[in-house]
Amino acid sequence: MRENKPNNGARVLATGRAHVLGFAFADLRRPYFAELAHEFSQAASKHGCRVFITETEGTAKGEEEVFADARSGLVDGVILHFENRNGAEVAALRGTTPTVFLGEAEPSAEVDHVSMDNVPAAVDAVNHLYSLGRRHIAFLGHEQGILTRTSALRLESYRQALTAHELPLDPRLEISRSEPGSISAETALGAVLDREPAMDAILCRDDLAAIGTLRALRTRNIPVPESIAVIGWDSIGLASSLTPTLTSVAEAENLAATALELLLERINGHEGPARHTTIRHHINKGESTP
Amino acid sequence: MRENKPNNGARVLATGRAHVLGFAFADLRRPYFAELAHEFSQAASKHGCRVFITETEGTAKGEEEVFADARSGLVDGVILHFENRNGAEVAALRGTTPTVFLGEAEPSAEVDHVSMDNVPAAVDAVNHLYSLGRRHIAFLGHEQGILTRTSALRLESYRQALTAHELPLDPRLEISRSEPGSISAETALGAVLDREPAMDAILCRDDLAAIGTLRALRTRNIPVPESIAVIGWDSIGLASSLTPTLTSVAEAENLAATALELLLERINGHEGPARHTTIRHHINKGESTP
Repeated sequence: MRENKPNNGARVLATGRAHVLGFAFADLRRPYFAELAHEFSQAASKHGCRVFITETEGTAKGEEEVFADARSGLVDGVILHFENRNGAEVAALRGTTPTVFLGEAEPSAEVDHVSMDNVPAAVDAVNHLYSLGRRHIAFLGHEQGILTRTSALRLESYRQALTAHELPLDPRLEISRSEPGSISAETALGAVLDREPAMDAILCRDDLAAIGTLRALRTRNIPVPESIAVIGWDSIGLASSLTPTLTSVAEAENLAATALELLLERINGHEGPARHTTIRHHINKGESTP
Repeated sequence: MRENKPNNGARVLATGRAHVLGFAFADLRRPYFAELAHEFSQAASKHGCRVFITETEGTAKGEEEVFADARSGLVDGVILHFENRNGAEVAALRGTTPTVFLGEAEPSAEVDHVSMDNVPAAVDAVNHLYSLGRRHIAFLGHEQGILTRTSALRLESYRQALTAHELPLDPRLEISRSEPGSISAETALGAVLDREPAMDAILCRDDLAAIGTLRALRTRNIPVPESIAVIGWDSIGLASSLTPTLTSVAEAENLAATALELLLERINGHEGPARHTTIRHHINKGESTP
């Protein structure tokens, strides 16, 4: 057998630091996560740290593995985007591992947390569509059955914004999909469109849903934005190469750098109470809204 | 400071194995690499191994870092898609690190190598366009200046296929771009289209180039595939959610699993001569060809 030189073992034993940070999320095939991982790696390298990416597949088992890496000394701390646990459950799992929780799960008093301002973002997106004269605004892309907290926050805020404009809530315009990708969004919207509902705008839960939406509309010769305006969420890189380019809710601040800063402080011994930081949004305008 | 428990150090020292495999490539923001990393992680987990992803940014420095990880014992071996070095240079860099080289760089007699059959793939793609009656076939998306070997192989095979059909080579139909993304492809093609060349098909170097191509054509109201047929390369997940869906050159076999198998054999002590494995292609047909 080839001989490995286990200097890393010696280095970890000597310094107590791996200079590697864990970053865990569901699936690299979702462009939002791949792009976030890239940003996080770039930010970490400025601090002399590498990033160990773990795909949890959105499963509880995958999410537990991340903390095993910290306990074994492979990583000094973890940033994680969990789908199966709230902040309190993560607080129980992590032991003494420096941890920053990402995303919209219910926060904990014990774990640092960076989230996006989903509620004002969804309201802004609806307001934008309303200001364009749209009155039949659909929401597309939440899960069937139990909602992730991200979906729940965005959907609930969409409803509140409609109500604030005295628009009726129409359950037929809340269109769930069976899988996270673009194809299930296309299928779900297609089934609704074929019943010819009154609909002049769609707020999508994420850009993959918006990509499926654009295709469902295009294959039915429904012009975007003339007949139906579309807003995505995440502002992934490819959104500006679609036709039409996608109007999308974007982070106005660097989420990766913010989370990294909190994590490094914990690794360096900061013992204060949990910080909950909110990243502001902006609406990145493209051709899919007029 | 929080106390890390450096059991990983102890574990590596005891067994000489990290059960972590390095996977290095240029940039996670390119969907082809993010999807390949996902497949590689899935395959590795079946062998009880994790994958440590490194983005080299296509720089020589980034490419050297990968072997430092192996020397320090962080990873047991590496699979790498290099852009700056050929196989002989990698052979010199790697020392005793078990290594599998991915992609089209000049192979070495010393390093295991998995590549795609680029030459027959490009010929097949051109033949497909020819069989549809297309006679003015462009190639789009290679680098300006020095070509990567991937681009060089695909472009040269495209030329050979044209010549085999007794079609003239037209330098105006070899359209390079300034950056790897979709936007530079859109810009490059747009500049050519605005001179109204005779062109009825485009073979793209990769799917990002094809996405930019579809947008350049759509914004000029040039119908795909009626006026210009388009073939991409890589068959990324989103290719089937574009409008039109993309015809694209795809791997017909699991490149990640093949590379993993070769690497695990080396980690387990296989000392034989370098293996050079070629992954077969197929043309994944979509709506962008008739």
